[in-house]
Order: sequence, then C-alpha cells, then structure tokens
Amino acid sequence: MAGLSFWRQEALAAAWAAEQDGDMRLSDIGEFGFIRRIARGRRAGRSVVLGLGDDAAAVRVGAGKLLLVTCDPVIEGIHFDATATDEQIGWKAMMRNVSDLAAMGGAPRWAVVSAALPRDFPLRRALAIQRGLDRAAKRCGVEIVGGDTARSRSGIQITVTALGDVASRKMVTRAGARPGHALLVTGALGGSRARKHRTFTPRMAEARFLAERGWASAMMDLSDGLASDLERLRERSGVGFEVFADKIPISAAARRGNASREARVRCAMEDGEDYELVFTTPPAKVARLRRAWARRFPLALTQIGVARPRAFGIRVTNAGARAGAKLMVAARNDHFLRNVREGRAEFHLRGRRRSGCRA
Amino acid sequence: MAGLSFWRQEALAAAWAAEQDGDMRLSDIGEFGFIRRIARGRRAGRSVVLGLGDDAAAVRVGAGKLLLVTCDPVIEGIHFDATATDEQIGWKAMMRNVSDLAAMGGAPRWAVVSAALPRDFPLRRALAIQRGLDRAAKRCGVEIVGGDTARSRSGIQITVTALGDVASRKMVTRAGARPGHALLVTGALGGSRARKHRTFTPRMAEARFLAERGWASAMMDLSDGLASDLERLRERSGVGFEVFADKIPISAAARRGNASREARVRCAMEDGEDYELVFTTPPAKVARLRRAWARRFPLALTQIGVARPRAFGIRVTNAGARAGAKLMVAARNDHFLRNVREGRAEFHLRGRRRSGCRA
Repeated sequence: MAGLSFWRQEALAAAWAAEQDGDMRLSDIGEFGFIRRIARGRRAGRSVVLGLGDDAAAVRVGAGKLLLVTCDPVIEGIHFDATATDEQIGWKAMMRNVSDLAAMGGAPRWAVVSAALPRDFPLRRALAIQRGLDRAAKRCGVEIVGGDTARSRSGIQITVTALGDVASRKMVTRAGARPGHALLVTGALGGSRARKHRTFTPRMAEARFLAERGWASAMMDLSDGLASDLERLRERSGVGFEVFADKIPISAAARRGNASREARVRCAMEDGEDYELVFTTPPAKVARLRRAWARRFPLALTQIGVARPRAFGIRVTNAGARAGAKLMVAARNDHFLRNVREGRAEFHLRGRRRSGCRA
Repeated sequence: MAGLSFWRQEALAAAWAAEQDGDMRLSDIGEFGFIRRIARGRRAGRSVVLGLGDDAAAVRVGAGKLLLVTCDPVIEGIHFDATATDEQIGWKAMMRNVSDLAAMGGAPRWAVVSAALPRDFPLRRALAIQRGLDRAAKRCGVEIVGGDTARSRSGIQITVTALGDVASRKMVTRAGARPGHALLVTGALGGSRARKHRTFTPRMAEARFLAERGWASAMMDLSDGLASDLERLRERSGVGFEVFADKIPISAAARRGNASREARVRCAMEDGEDYELVFTTPPAKVARLRRAWARRFPLALTQIGVARPRAFGIRVTNAGARAGAKLMVAARNDHFLRNVREGRAEFHLRGRRRSGCRA
C-alpha cells in the first residue's frame, strides 16, 4: 500500500498553482503527490489506529487486537510483462500484499481478490492465475474468502486486499525511528526485475521475529526501492538517514548485470520490488540482535546506515563518493511521474547526474 | 461481491469437456461458471464463517462479532460510460460495496481504495473521483483508511474493498429461505441504467432494520437483476421461487422507456443495478412486518413471490403469462458470456424468445 512521500516544496507550490488552473495531470504531480493531496485535511476516526501512510491500515476490532488491511493491484504492462507466467502473476498479486502486512509485524489471515480479465481470456490461463493466488495464499497461511470477477477492456488486472491481525502492542509502523537508531536491511537488493519480483516470498518469519521481540523501532518492506522507500520512512519518523553506500548488500542479479560498484549501488537503491525488510533499531540492541538473528535465520542482515536528525535529510556516504553528497530521490517507481524515463532512474551520488542501471 | 450461480448441467459438462481440451474461454463459461469452477473443492477454514458465495465474506474477529469483507471494481466501459461524472464514478465504486455489506445486515466501517488511472489523467478529474468516494463514504459512515494508486494502461478502474461488522447472530445470509417464505423487494425495479446506478444510496437503514429485528430469513442486494440474483438466492437456500410477474414493482424509468407491461417486467427482472433489497420472511410475519415497515420507511415494500421446494425451480407466473412458464435466466449481467448481446437480454416469459428492454 502506498504511503505519503515527502514532496519538494517547489513541486507542491507549482502543483497547487496548476491545480487552480485545472490543467494539471497525474504525471505532473506523481503518485505520492496525488496521495499526499487527497490525504490533506483528512483526520482518522477513533477506530482507526493507522490510516493513510504506512504499509497497511490498522483498525481496532477487539481489545488489544488490530486488524490490518492493505490493497495493491498487479496490472499487465505495469507490474508484470510477457515474461511472467500466469501462476507468477497470481503469486505476485497475493505476495505483494502479504509483504505489506508482514512489514507491520502482522499475521496475514484472509484475502479477497478482484480479477479483471478480457472477455475472451482462456479459462486455462485464468485458472493458472488462480493457482498462483492459491499457492501463495497457502504458503502464507492466508485464506481467500471472496472476490469478484469482471471483464476488463484490455489486459489483466488482479487486485488483492489482504487482511491480517496483530496485537496492538506488537505492531511496528514507519514512525518509530529516532536519530541514532541503526538502519538495517534483510537479504540483498537490486536486480529484482530479472526474476525475483515474480517469485519472492515475503519475509514473514523475519518480520514477526523483529516485531514480536521488539527489535524494530520502525519497519517497512522495500517495494519501490531503497531510495524511494527511505524517503517515506524518513517522513513518517521525522528523521534523516545517512546511508553507507559501500555497506549496501548487492544481489547477485544486480552484480551480474553491472560491472561498476556505482551502477550496482544504483540498482540496489532504485530498482525496487526487493520485498526485503528495512528497519531501524536502537544502537544498544544491534549486537544482541545480530546474534539472535544469526541463530534463527540464514538470511543476511546488514546495517546500511544510521538515522540522523530530520534536518540531515537523506545522504549517501562512502569512501568513493564526495562526503555528504545529498541523495536526490529517484522517482522511477512513481507510477505517474513523466519526467523519469521508463526503465531508468537518476540520482546524484557524487553531484553528477547518472542514468539508471541494468538488471 | 459475486456469488456462485447455478449453472445449467449441460453447460458445465461442455465446459468440463472443453477445459480438458484447454481451448475454453471465459466467454464460454461465464463469470459465475468461472467462480463456481475456482470454488470447487475449496473448504473454508475455522475462522471463516462465510466464504465465497454471498454478498460479502464473514470472518470471526472477536467473541460474537463478525468482520464482513467485500470487494467490487468499477471499470470504465463496463460499469460506467461517458455519461457518468467523475464524482458519480467514485460514488458508485464506494456504494456498490457498501450495498453488499448492508445486505448482510452489517454496518459499513472502513474501506481501502485501489485506483488505476491513465498516466496523463487530469488531476482535477482524479480529485473529483476522490470527492465522490469521500462523499459516499461519509454518507455511509465509512472511513477510507488506505489504498493504492497505480497507472492503468487505459481507462479508469476503481476497486473498493469495504469492511463492516455485524453481530454473529444478526447476520443475514442468502441461505435462510425456506419453502413457503414470502419473497419481498424494496423500492421499484428496472431502468437503473438511465441514472440510478450512478447515484443510488444503499438501503442501509432498511437492511439493518430487517436484520436486527429478525424479519429477513435470507437477503441480498439486487445488483445483477432480479432474474439473475434470484438464481443465486435459490441456489444458496436450496429452494425454488414462484415470482408473481404482475406484482413486481416497476420503476418510473422503466415505465417511461417501455410501453408494454411485458417489456417493463423484463426491465425489472433483467436490467440489474437496482441496489434494492430482495429478501424472504416466514409467512406468519408478513403482516406484522408490513405494519412495522410502514411506520418506519416511506419506501415501498412489495411481496413479489413465494419460496417453493427446490424442484420447483424459478417460475414466473401471472394472469397474462402461460401458467407456470419456466423462467430462463438471462445472463445479461454476466461479465463474460458471449452469447448475450450487449445491452439486450433474453428470457422466456411465455415460451417465446423476447429481446431486451429499453431504459
């Protein structure tokens, strides 16, 4: 589920002016600009513990218990292409929602599925998509309890809404990072588009462990890419982040496709769809967490930075880069922004503009 | 939310045979055939009180309390056309889901919205859709707690998932009709496509009244049309229905567009999107219900038939029609079926094929 991204003041001002003229398009304001716009002035009711702006919404359904709700579509040509099998389409549609619930420390429980398919879509393919949904659901302990099937004008669109629950006191939001907290990620980043985004399993056990034992002060899943997602963690927690570029774990897929360290770091920061966890933890806990983690999970756990005061912004630092160069957040994974070329992203690692990576 | 429809045996047999050949299309089996197919062999877990096949799913979230979940999209060119305003699109997207919750006796509480819009969609229009969603939500006491915005390849698609709650003992499903129970509808039917389907308010107060006072033994909202929806009520309750054609309340819109009584009845049975309630009640309660209803609601309440044993099937009877003529259920509102011409429907009221109505 999309959150509210920080948006540059000048863009907002321009947006507001253009809106007055009524000639602005979604591509001018971007997905997060749009969500920010519709969230304006909205106040959550008493039953709502967490509304717009986190991985999932949380509402009160019983004493000490929260219901988590999240809803994300997969759309042909946007979230998958012709290389995806039908089962992978169904799998991804379920898993990207489960990943949102997991990132709050929640246990996924139920899902409803809205499938829009072309009228003459082969039944065999529709059943294969369903099989992917079912297998993913089974893998995650989710029960598909309902849904709807409608005709699309063209292409496949599967929208899963996933429901889960979590004890109120165990929920981890994006809002708990404090200056000084260590910034960590699970697994390795980048190159997901080669394959992983269609086949990943959300980090459910890892997220539950981090939430239930109180290790994570703030957490989210990496769906849009570290650069973009850190921006949201930053905004919700009211902190800044220093990211150690040379510490970022690079996936084998990103290494394969890119020779230079810089290109690989770009992949890791901007490809998106890693579906790994990024979280913060108080510095005093880091060593203990590492030991407990190693006993429990074979998956890599890497400290990639540290939370700083808000005014710090987000900066990527490493030996090779100009110290303190400010990260320009790439909007590659913003669904509407027009000024980002398809399949490419830009950010300033050393003050120079560089183009995107290959996976 | 779509349910499981009865499907003719021969069609199923043909479907199965064709599926073996792997060359079947959704248009051959239809929406309900497809849903029936994917529901095959599915067994609900312990937390699931009601899975596929009713207006909404019901899951257990606390002692004596059920969470209701339903999810329906509105898609440009399918659920609305160029005559709909943007606000109406948002309104309808919310209200058709709230209507499903209401029909189970539930109180709508929360919603998440997944909006797929073209990249260059005007911000002004996106905000108008959001305004429609917000106004509908406010009207129904629903809080929009989250969602996602994605780029569509073409056209507007808004998928709302609505959540509500209901006391376990007050929930009304489609399964409680028994032979002899009276069959009633609220309001007047037909001609919704002229306007009502974009502007309706779900019968929330009426549904709550029917559920909380225990008047309704089975209930659903009329979304696909009386002919099609009765088929689902029949299937879930394991009964038949005799429908008194001359008792069906015809809307002013359907009367305006059609001169003959027969054409008007066709509209009322097949237009769909009435978003009225159809329900059954034990015969001993009918007179008392009528009195209590009249004290409370100005809306018409009409007995249009009676539940019969399962073997009766669905028959439409009236003075003008051949006695006992069997209703052939029109599949006009099945999203996939190919053998139904767009905007037209066919059913056999007197043994002759007749074409659809005008609204």
